[in-house]
Formats: sequence, structure tokens, C-alpha cells
Amino acid sequence: MITNKQIKELATWNRKAKARREDGVFLAEGTKMFLEAPINRIRKVFVSESFFATEACREKLNKTGFETVPGYVFEKISDTMTPQGILCVMERMDYTLENLLKKENPTLMLLEDIQDPGNLGTIMRTGEGAGIDGIILSKGCVDIYNPKTIRSTMGSLYRMPFLYTDELKETIIYLKEKGIRFYAAHLNGAVFYDEADYSADGGIGFLIGNEGNGLTDETAALADTCIKIPMEGQVESLNAAIAASVLMYEAYRQKRRKA
Amino acid sequence: MITNKQIKELATWNRKAKARREDGVFLAEGTKMFLEAPINRIRKVFVSESFFATEACREKLNKTGFETVPGYVFEKISDTMTPQGILCVMERMDYTLENLLKKENPTLMLLEDIQDPGNLGTIMRTGEGAGIDGIILSKGCVDIYNPKTIRSTMGSLYRMPFLYTDELKETIIYLKEKGIRFYAAHLNGAVFYDEADYSADGGIGFLIGNEGNGLTDETAALADTCIKIPMEGQVESLNAAIAASVLMYEAYRQKRRKA
Repeated sequence: MITNKQIKELATWNRKAKARREDGVFLAEGTKMFLEAPINRIRKVFVSESFFATEACREKLNKTGFETVPGYVFEKISDTMTPQGILCVMERMDYTLENLLKKENPTLMLLEDIQDPGNLGTIMRTGEGAGIDGIILSKGCVDIYNPKTIRSTMGSLYRMPFLYTDELKETIIYLKEKGIRFYAAHLNGAVFYDEADYSADGGIGFLIGNEGNGLTDETAALADTCIKIPMEGQVESLNAAIAASVLMYEAYRQKRRKA
Repeated sequence: MITNKQIKELATWNRKAKARREDGVFLAEGTKMFLEAPINRIRKVFVSESFFATEACREKLNKTGFETVPGYVFEKISDTMTPQGILCVMERMDYTLENLLKKENPTLMLLEDIQDPGNLGTIMRTGEGAGIDGIILSKGCVDIYNPKTIRSTMGSLYRMPFLYTDELKETIIYLKEKGIRFYAAHLNGAVFYDEADYSADGGIGFLIGNEGNGLTDETAALADTCIKIPMEGQVESLNAAIAASVLMYEAYRQKRRKA
């Protein structure tokens, strides 16, 4: 039976990035996140009494094992207003820079101090769709294991290689030496984003800055090219996830055209 | 002085689309939404005691007039967790279909049953950036005057013509007779979105469906072309605002190339 100590621990893992990091776990909630979870990373599954398991769920639950908890307990361990009734304690993913570079001519996203959990999750989800090979995050970015981020990834969290770096600058310099060209999304970009050639050999990285402030000057200065997404009307900027998606899909479009 | 009745009324306008509709108002919160508000639509401005007005704010407040309320009252009339301390009661915008069609070769967005307030606001903001001429919403869409939607428009609400229709089907048929070609975003689309020509004469409309279910078959059947955004990996769909943005920016890219 679930103990009060366990309930408290789960609630803490929902709220605190530090506790998740120290304990090496994250929480994945909902049917989709359960069904797509790599089985070797599942530590424990909690199911609410009223959870209606589809056949696919039942089959997987048979393999993972699970613990049933009363509805009022599930509400305490859930991060959502209307819980689906299934929650997994997961072991964190661990990637190295080499995992992000294993394809030829990779396309990478480098995120500097992205703060909104939904934006980060959406960039990961769209990035998988657009064939991005990996995401590198500055240490100032929101925790990718934030429950809201996880939900917005719609499962891409399990599949998209990613890495936090304490030294974004050094990482970019290292990747440049490997032949990767960097494009900084910048309001003062010299070139429209659709005028750059993303399909040339060598791989590319997009630099995306913080929602309010954009890229720091220091990071933007490392880019080979500063690109601008044109905007009509009185729009001052686009949402960070939207800007990232427009860039990723333009790179993907060019690569498909070339292929 | 603000009365309890007024406080209740403001709180109701934050929460209830029906009350806003019946009273012909909406609430616009924050400095940006105040500064960009068309002055002839401002009915009343409330400012928190602790509000720090920039010079631009003070200048506009001199023209509009305002009422100062104690901080604890402002928290009651605000929809946000950390209020900026300024809130306007606004008269609703009113557009006709002709307002959306005044440019030659317009680009329109037709949204069917979009439910997420943030998605709707983001589509409007990105749409202004991509040079969209108007947005048509099925009556099943979330209220565009929802406080969350308003915030995500970042001011585009004041500038982007839009219209709710009880009869989406009839509206599409009417617009087709006017020469507008319709492209339905559809997971089973026959054509990749970047293979269609959006820059030909006559104007275009994108049909975007509900977050969970996509377009109804009935609406999709009215399109001239069903288009698909290609997706790598195991991604089943993109977020609705992301999909809409990728389409709008592709149409804009083609038009800029042609111009």
C-alpha cells in the first residue's frame, strides 16, 4: 500500500526540479506517456481505482506491474486538474553529445534560457516531427522534466536526444569545429530565415533565445549567420516555440527538396 | 470608488464568455494591452495603487482617465497570478465579412472548434506576423475574448479582423464563390503543404480543425485540396497553433518570393 511518505515524495517530484535531479527520476502522467514509455526506464506505475485501461494498457501493465491507489490519493500525486488515472515514476534519460551527433549532417536546436515549460515541450514535439537530431539546452532553461513540459512533448521526450550544458558558449565552439554552421534567430538578423541554405553538407544548429529577451549578445555573436523571421503589421516578435517551429520546418522543407 | 458590485461584475467578465457577450465588453490586462488599445474602445481603466506607469502609460492615462484601486482589490479583478496593475474594460470589436475581404487575394484562416485559449491567441499573433487578412471561427471555438486568449495575442486582437460564424459550411461555400481556394490541414492530406501554390490569384483560406479531432469530415470535404504537414519519427500530429503557423509562414514565404 502507498505510504504517506511516498505520496509526499511524488508530490515533491511534481513540483521540484532539484528533487527530481537528486533522485534521478521524473514523473510521466497519462495513458499516452505510459504507453510510449521505454519499459526499461519505468520504475513504478500508479493507477487510480477508477482508471479505465484499454487493452494496450492492460497488456503493458501486465509487464510493468502496478499499484492501485484510491482516487483521492491519485489526485494528490497527479499534476493535472483532471487526471487520467495513470502515472509512472521513470528513470531519467541520459544522452551524451555523441548521441546528438550520430547522424551525418545533423540538425540541432540550441536553446538559451527558455523559461516556459509548454514552449520547451512543444519545441521537442515539433522538432521530432521536423526531423531534428537533438536539443541542447543552456542551464538557464526550464527543467525538461517539468510535468507541463513532459505533457507538451506528447511522448517525444522519450525519443529526442537532449543535453543540458553549463557552458553553452564552449559547446557551440566545439560544434563549430566539428563543421556545424549556426543560425541565430534574431530580430536584427541580416538575412531572412528562408534565404539561408540549411541543406548544405556539415550540419546546422539553430540558436533560439529566451522568450522575453531573445539571445544574449554573446551567444548571438557565435552564430555564422543571424536570421530574421519577417513580420507584418505591428507584431514585435513571435512566440519562441512558433519561431523555432517555423525555422525547423523550413530546414526540413529544404532538405526534402534536395533529397 | 469601486463598488462591490463592480468588482463582482469584473470578475464575472473574466470568467464567463456569456456575460461578456451580453454586456458587449471584454477585459484587456497589462501594460502592452493598454498601450495598444484603440482609445475609442476603452470604456474604463482600473489601475492598482502600486502600478508603476511609464511615461507612455501616463500620457495615455491622461487621455483615457482611470480609477485607482487598492492592491487587494486589483487582485480580485485580475485574471493573472502576478498582475501588472492595469486593466481596461473594452468595447468588443465588430467586423463584417467584408472587412476580412477588403484586400485583393486575401489569406484567411478558418478555425473549426479550436478549444485552447492559448492556441487561438497564438494563431492570431502569428497570423498578423504572416500577413493574414482575417480569421473566421466556427461557433464551437473558444471565446476570443477569453483573458488567456487576449494575453497570447500580444495586441493582435486589436488589429486582426475576425468573425464568428454559426454556419461554417455556408461561409466556406460563399467564399469559394468569391474565388477563394481552400486548403484543409489534414493528417491524410494528398499533398504536402509545401507542394501547393498559395500565391496564385484569387485568395486562399486554410481550414484548421480541433486540437483532438482535427477537421470534421464535412468541413474537410469542402476544401479544394487536403494538405499534410510531413512528420518524422513517431509524431502523430502537431499542436494546432504550430501547424497553423507552419502553413501561414509557408504561404507568406511563397508570396514574398513572387512579389
